[in-house]
Amino acid sequence: MKARVTVTLKPGVLDPQGAAIAQALGGLGFTGVQGVRQGKLIEIDLAEGDAATARAEVEAMCEKLLANTVIETYAVEIA
Amino acid sequence: MKARVTVTLKPGVLDPQGAAIAQALGGLGFTGVQGVRQGKLIEIDLAEGDAATARAEVEAMCEKLLANTVIETYAVEIA
Repeated sequence: MKARVTVTLKPGVLDPQGAAIAQALGGLGFTGVQGVRQGKLIEIDLAEGDAATARAEVEAMCEKLLANTVIETYAVEIA
Repeated sequence: MKARVTVTLKPGVLDPQGAAIAQALGGLGFTGVQGVRQGKLIEIDLAEGDAATARAEVEAMCEKLLANTVIETYAVEIA
C-alpha cells in the first residue's frame, strides 16, 4: 500500500521558510499573495496489505520520527 | 482562496532525503517500509477570488519559483 503523509507547522508557529517564499513571490510580481506556509510531504511504500493496519503503522512512524508533534501536525492518507 | 501545492521529485531522480528516512524507519523497527520519497507542501493564501484565475496564477508561481521543473513535478489544488 502507499501512504501519503503531510506534515505542517501548527497555526501560530513561526514559519520563516514560508515567509521567505511569500517575499520572493512578491518580488516576482505576484501581488495577491497573502500568506504562505511550507510543510513536508512524505510518500511511503508499505508491504502491509490491510489499510487499517497500514494507517496505524504510519501514525506510529509520524509520532516517532516524521513529525515533531510539539510544533507540527500530520495527516495520513492511505491509497 | 487557498491553494495547496505539492512538489515532488520526478520518478527516477535520486532522493537521498527519502532514502535517509527509509533507513531511519528501518532502524526504529518498521520493517515493512519498501520505499520513501520526500516532497514539499506549500499552502498559499491568495487575494484572488476566481478559482480558474487563482489556479493559473499558482501554476505560474510553480514554474517560476516553487518547483525546479527539470527534476520536480508539481500539483495544484484550489480550495
